Amino acid sequence: MKIIIDAMGGDNAPLAPVEGGLRAAKELGVEVLFTGREAELRAALGKLGHPEMPQGVEIVPASEVITMEDNPARAFKDKKDSSMTVGLNLLKEGRGDAFVCAGSTGALLSGATLIIKRIRGIRRAALAPVIPTAGGGCVLIDSGATAECTPEYLLQFAFMGAYYARRFLGVAEPKVGLLNIGAEASKGLELQKTAYDLLQQADAQGRIHFAGNIEGREAVCQGVDVLVCDGYSGNIFLKTIEGTALFMSQCLKEMFLSSTKTKLCALAMKEQVAQLKRRFDAAEIGGTALLGISKPVIKAHGSSSAYAFFNAVRQAKLVAESGIIQDIDANVEHMRLTAEPSAQ
Amino acid sequence: MKIIIDAMGGDNAPLAPVEGGLRAAKELGVEVLFTGREAELRAALGKLGHPEMPQGVEIVPASEVITMEDNPARAFKDKKDSSMTVGLNLLKEGRGDAFVCAGSTGALLSGATLIIKRIRGIRRAALAPVIPTAGGGCVLIDSGATAECTPEYLLQFAFMGAYYARRFLGVAEPKVGLLNIGAEASKGLELQKTAYDLLQQADAQGRIHFAGNIEGREAVCQGVDVLVCDGYSGNIFLKTIEGTALFMSQCLKEMFLSSTKTKLCALAMKEQVAQLKRRFDAAEIGGTALLGISKPVIKAHGSSSAYAFFNAVRQAKLVAESGIIQDIDANVEHMRLTAEPSAQ
Repeated sequence: MKIIIDAMGGDNAPLAPVEGGLRAAKELGVEVLFTGREAELRAALGKLGHPEMPQGVEIVPASEVITMEDNPARAFKDKKDSSMTVGLNLLKEGRGDAFVCAGSTGALLSGATLIIKRIRGIRRAALAPVIPTAGGGCVLIDSGATAECTPEYLLQFAFMGAYYARRFLGVAEPKVGLLNIGAEASKGLELQKTAYDLLQQADAQGRIHFAGNIEGREAVCQGVDVLVCDGYSGNIFLKTIEGTALFMSQCLKEMFLSSTKTKLCALAMKEQVAQLKRRFDAAEIGGTALLGISKPVIKAHGSSSAYAFFNAVRQAKLVAESGIIQDIDANVEHMRLTAEPSAQ
Repeated sequence: MKIIIDAMGGDNAPLAPVEGGLRAAKELGVEVLFTGREAELRAALGKLGHPEMPQGVEIVPASEVITMEDNPARAFKDKKDSSMTVGLNLLKEGRGDAFVCAGSTGALLSGATLIIKRIRGIRRAALAPVIPTAGGGCVLIDSGATAECTPEYLLQFAFMGAYYARRFLGVAEPKVGLLNIGAEASKGLELQKTAYDLLQQADAQGRIHFAGNIEGREAVCQGVDVLVCDGYSGNIFLKTIEGTALFMSQCLKEMFLSSTKTKLCALAMKEQVAQLKRRFDAAEIGGTALLGISKPVIKAHGSSSAYAFFNAVRQAKLVAESGIIQDIDANVEHMRLTAEPSAQ
């Protein structure tokens, strides 16, 4: 298996993606292919103790870099020789099995949609990070790829999220919840009300296990396996968890630094505090699958460290091996409003 | 000053509202007027050591109770003799200066809008809780009263939130942020894009201090003074903070209970942990002002304890004394799209 890595994407490029990729090549039994400016990548390799190209590592040169200033919708076309566009084209041509990229989410989404294409019948791609909740992990779909959604998109997100949860969380029958502002079926805007009906129909047909509406509070402190929402709400939800976790960590730190006594406690509980931090740390998961695209594309966090890239490559390998794209492709007829639900 | 309290609303009624109200009468120099079933209220008073009616305390009987099962839009009409409807009518008639209620939010909103009425020119009422952020307190407006909004509503929320922050957070020039999925002006749905322009115009006219778009993460871990959003997003935001804080508290508890050593730390840090908990505790704030209504109406949390009711009464007193309704009324022309912005 070969994983293509955009070695110029993210705040810590090229060193972090190269270091994470090298570790993955060594520990995960995969080959890696870096795209980016060859001189910079060779310099990074040298810095990491590899004056010669290590085995299982390859570079495909790309002279340009897509930045946050580029227009997300056009960047992949405007910069045809960017590390992102070159990487996506290599994936399309079958030169690798998955693509990992920490660059602009919008540009990656447009590029993946137009170069790799969506799975036939899937209306929109979705970013589906696994988030920490009291119930274990939860697939949040969509977390911001498609801000404005139709009920049909949400239906498709529910199916894709359920397949993903089955493969990645190991849950045989994932419970799917619809993010909403109340538990009753009548709650929310038109979007949620119509989506509720569609999800209930899919549940009645035995295709997904719909657990109903779920509020932001219960979504975190109780949890479902798959949380379905439009990209706008999902992004607010995800970022609010991040912000609250960060704020509470700051409070905790203050608390532990407030006196000699508390400092001793901090020392005594070092291991437990580190564990708590890890539980909320994005680097542990690595990346977010872009579901609905016909080949595995993994968005790594913009601030990814080498360790986060390593984990993103591991996740890319899992996605490529999992057969989830085949799952979606084989069931796409059940996710479309044009299909006759009662014909099944 | 006299505060009317719906003594039948909330999970702990009538004991909690009666106990909180009694304490307020004793400590805050206000009179309180309870609405509800007289026999139950007298029994609660007796249980609290008051076989006779204490000074400054009054009961106005109401035989019905609005429950969560009642239709929120019609409940106040269907149950004309409910503790909520009677309380709202007393406020309308000037029998008290403010109304505190822990009953159904939807029913209270409908009742307040149709019995007390909105301030002339205000299109929709908003629930504006003060939430804990790293920047201190933040007025979140709207947190769920008006799920679906127009850009004009958001403009009005910004003004009302700013007046509220000035009076209650003591910030001379409150920074107003628009909750969004990115910082750039082009981010979000049509609603946010149009609202961004309106808020920028109001800022250019020197009427509010608009700090631009703010993401969920920064809204919590950095903070603004006023966070403007539609009720749907605001509710997701608020509940997600609650859920994450609760989840992290559970994790902390597990952490402190994991060994003898950590248990000793928990004991040593009892005071600090309690302080941290208080920082995220809704009971400390007490209630949420229903802004845009022409008289002070305070929504207390459904699970309010006696202490939370006490704080809600304190907040009701502050709102009644503050002149915020006059602030809004005097400036309503600047909050309307029909007004000519350049005429100023």
